[in-house]
Amino acid sequence: MLRDPIQVTVWGENIHEREDPAVRAIYPTGMHGAVASGIAEHLGEGARVRTALFDQHEHGLTDEVLAGTDVLTWWGHKAHDGVADAVVERVHRHVLNGMGLIVLHSGHHAKVFVRLMGTTCSLRWREADDREVVWTVDPTHPIADGVPSPFVLPEQEMYGEFFDIPRPDELVFISTFSGGEAFRSGCCFRRGWGRVFYFGPGHETHPVYHQPEVRRVLANAVRWAYGGPRPRRTTYTPELSPTGWFERHDGAPGR
Amino acid sequence: MLRDPIQVTVWGENIHEREDPAVRAIYPTGMHGAVASGIAEHLGEGARVRTALFDQHEHGLTDEVLAGTDVLTWWGHKAHDGVADAVVERVHRHVLNGMGLIVLHSGHHAKVFVRLMGTTCSLRWREADDREVVWTVDPTHPIADGVPSPFVLPEQEMYGEFFDIPRPDELVFISTFSGGEAFRSGCCFRRGWGRVFYFGPGHETHPVYHQPEVRRVLANAVRWAYGGPRPRRTTYTPELSPTGWFERHDGAPGR
Amino acid sequence: MLRDPIQVTVWGENIHEREDPAVRAIYPTGMHGAVASGIAEHLGEGARVRTALFDQHEHGLTDEVLAGTDVLTWWGHKAHDGVADAVVERVHRHVLNGMGLIVLHSGHHAKVFVRLMGTTCSLRWREADDREVVWTVDPTHPIADGVPSPFVLPEQEMYGEFFDIPRPDELVFISTFSGGEAFRSGCCFRRGWGRVFYFGPGHETHPVYHQPEVRRVLANAVRWAYGGPRPRRTTYTPELSPTGWFERHDGAPGR
Amino acid sequence: MLRDPIQVTVWGENIHEREDPAVRAIYPTGMHGAVASGIAEHLGEGARVRTALFDQHEHGLTDEVLAGTDVLTWWGHKAHDGVADAVVERVHRHVLNGMGLIVLHSGHHAKVFVRLMGTTCSLRWREADDREVVWTVDPTHPIADGVPSPFVLPEQEMYGEFFDIPRPDELVFISTFSGGEAFRSGCCFRRGWGRVFYFGPGHETHPVYHQPEVRRVLANAVRWAYGGPRPRRTTYTPELSPTGWFERHDGAPGR
Repeated sequence: MLRDPIQVTVWGENIHEREDPAVRAIYPTGMHGAVASGIAEHLGEGARVRTALFDQHEHGLTDEVLAGTDVLTWWGHKAHDGVADAVVERVHRHVLNGMGLIVLHSGHHAKVFVRLMGTTCSLRWREADDREVVWTVDPTHPIADGVPSPFVLPEQEMYGEFFDIPRPDELVFISTFSGGEAFRSGCCFRRGWGRVFYFGPGHETHPVYHQPEVRRVLANAVRWAYGGPRPRRTTYTPELSPTGWFERHDGAPGR
Repeated sequence: MLRDPIQVTVWGENIHEREDPAVRAIYPTGMHGAVASGIAEHLGEGARVRTALFDQHEHGLTDEVLAGTDVLTWWGHKAHDGVADAVVERVHRHVLNGMGLIVLHSGHHAKVFVRLMGTTCSLRWREADDREVVWTVDPTHPIADGVPSPFVLPEQEMYGEFFDIPRPDELVFISTFSGGEAFRSGCCFRRGWGRVFYFGPGHETHPVYHQPEVRRVLANAVRWAYGGPRPRRTTYTPELSPTGWFERHDGAPGR
Repeated sequence: MLRDPIQVTVWGENIHEREDPAVRAIYPTGMHGAVASGIAEHLGEGARVRTALFDQHEHGLTDEVLAGTDVLTWWGHKAHDGVADAVVERVHRHVLNGMGLIVLHSGHHAKVFVRLMGTTCSLRWREADDREVVWTVDPTHPIADGVPSPFVLPEQEMYGEFFDIPRPDELVFISTFSGGEAFRSGCCFRRGWGRVFYFGPGHETHPVYHQPEVRRVLANAVRWAYGGPRPRRTTYTPELSPTGWFERHDGAPGR
Repeated sequence: MLRDPIQVTVWGENIHEREDPAVRAIYPTGMHGAVASGIAEHLGEGARVRTALFDQHEHGLTDEVLAGTDVLTWWGHKAHDGVADAVVERVHRHVLNGMGLIVLHSGHHAKVFVRLMGTTCSLRWREADDREVVWTVDPTHPIADGVPSPFVLPEQEMYGEFFDIPRPDELVFISTFSGGEAFRSGCCFRRGWGRVFYFGPGHETHPVYHQPEVRRVLANAVRWAYGGPRPRRTTYTPELSPTGWFERHDGAPGR
């Protein structure tokens, strides 16, 4: 079923990395580089991983790129407001039409995630090198496959409740922090024909994306958000359906 | 708990009623009039029901009106695009801050509902006087309280799957139609501090809002979307939360 | 709607309290006494609260008692195996037929809860005076009404994931513990015509049920599990339904 | 990921087929034969499909057979009560420990399904050759993959709401019937480490399991319930977890 390589586009803002030597020291190929290598490490021949960056033409996310992307991962922070609305609109459309989307850490405030959720997507936070412990609460979920429960991120930015998102369709991970906070850190949503996964870990000043458990989650999430080969949909615009329409239709699969 | 009357605002587009004598014959006080009377009939002293209309100043939905509204019901169809974006933004904000919202029938394409859902909210449809049968699939749900299962709408516009909404937090009703279609016709969503209910029945050329079972659903939905007295929230904008913040806070209720 | 007092039966095992002076010092009227007073404190005239105990005839849970109970709360620990199967069967039946059930702390292993869930209901635990912090993740939920988020239990037994329950229909609270564990500590389930709430806090060696926030949760949970006046159902045994059956039925409310 | 063949055991009651020539004419190799061939047709080398029957020793479901089964399908009707409790207990345990279970049609009253659900699992029914129309309401779900929406079963037994099950974790299909009934006909549940799928279609007097769309659903469901290679769990019996336990554990995957 997963014979063809999954076409993955890892989107990175790539601003912290360029501006802050400390971040660059942790992520010499950019955070996008670490995310991409984590996915490639696990999926191997099963995925073809490219990157796209904020400061590229159309943020590297032309319609052609998105049409050729099965799963898009998104890490942004400082430049959320700078992402062009036309690109947000385009990514949103591709998600509804079947492209998987994985939103990482500070991407919770990315315009496209906010638009898909319909809420503020705000949360509590603190940069104090808390220890984060990530617990699996849905052990049958494919994104938890092979992931130890719990696993520990020795130092992480605290992200805590209340996290203003719609109730996740599937809650996979819950995190705790040294300070006592809780956070729904692994959340699945289905929107239109697309699947969306939000994953909390990933601050730019901690080597989170080098950690084996996190890389496994990323790869699992790509596979889950992919969901198998199928053509990209066009925007769902059903037509008037006269009585008996489905008895005459050609029986084309619904997906 | 429900001592104070619930402040209900019934919003109506009021275009079909003015333009089409056949609709006016069914709804002489407008569809909004029928919806309002259905709610008042059941909640009595427990609710104060006002109406607001599309062609009023700011569509009748000023910030003051919304601040004084516990639950807003929405019926629109022809003028979705004509609703000012500033008003959509305002209604959206009030919902996230705790105002209940009940979206009726063709309101599935109202800008504010689409924005709250994050999907196209499109569906199949047919005006062919199908019989609609409404089934309760969550008999413990307060919106199903006292509603016979099933109840029959002798003639209704068909609204059918696929209905492109996020998975409802609570699915209360499923409808079938003479032509064989199925529809998730009673769907609850929680967004921010607000509760949203979508209810399928309600075409302008059928006396649906005069039917006792439908009026009971409307009143139940108002009570559910209200959820008890509490102050309206402001937009959720949590601040940086230093370690130990919650040990020092004043213990104010979270809601 | 809540005019008539809610008939609450607080079931207590009452073994720790009798056998252990330290527990009795914390709970001189028994844990059931504290639970009952917490509910009464908030619901006042709105509830009539009785208690029933393990060592009473039929554990105090005759068919007559259950028929007159709108909401049953359950605290047990040492004597789970000693609860007669016939009583378990009876409580299970009443829940499916509409009686609310609130299962507290170590009640996770009560036979009736295990039977309602269909899983082992096992969890991790530790008695080490961890601090428990309880976070609301569903602020629109009636059980969270007026409950500060978070609230702190200075000392509690640790209950942690993986908690082997079906996915809750509504997840209201998540707890963290000093040791770093996470726990889904406020979980709603709907079973048949009944509503079930599991609440984690409540170890016998800590004065948890004297704490104001916990008492508020208990009272809220009773109100939620009650859901309004309605006759107790009999076991759901639908009969063969010939074509057109629902067009001829008497329109009796479905609930 | 699915390199190894999935070990599928198709359990059949095989009573109608033996006793009723009309059923045998439709299912000359038994209903289990048709179910097995439908799965094999789609999964090919990816599955090894065996059958087990009610009148075999221990109903063909010894601990050895179950230990070697990744996914068990279950069709029963007349002999629910005759299934030995020890076998029910065993199947239940294997499901919680990770074996997938697919319950078909009248299997809704199988002891093991009732036990996994905790409710009566009762429903309305009628044998009147209704036309059943099956609609996908979760188009991103793997069980809907390649399945036309809707598809039509020209003649089927009516199964209708209220279907007394817990709220499904994922609702994939809704069916309508000529008589106007609705039914949640494709329901996913997660219990312990196992996945359970209930599928409505499949009466013994109709050639439902020969129909291509149904066979595709069966194969998809097997793949979904499998979820990838992993060792069978033992019963979840967590031990006391002293502070810091997870910092010292061996990091073995949680699943």
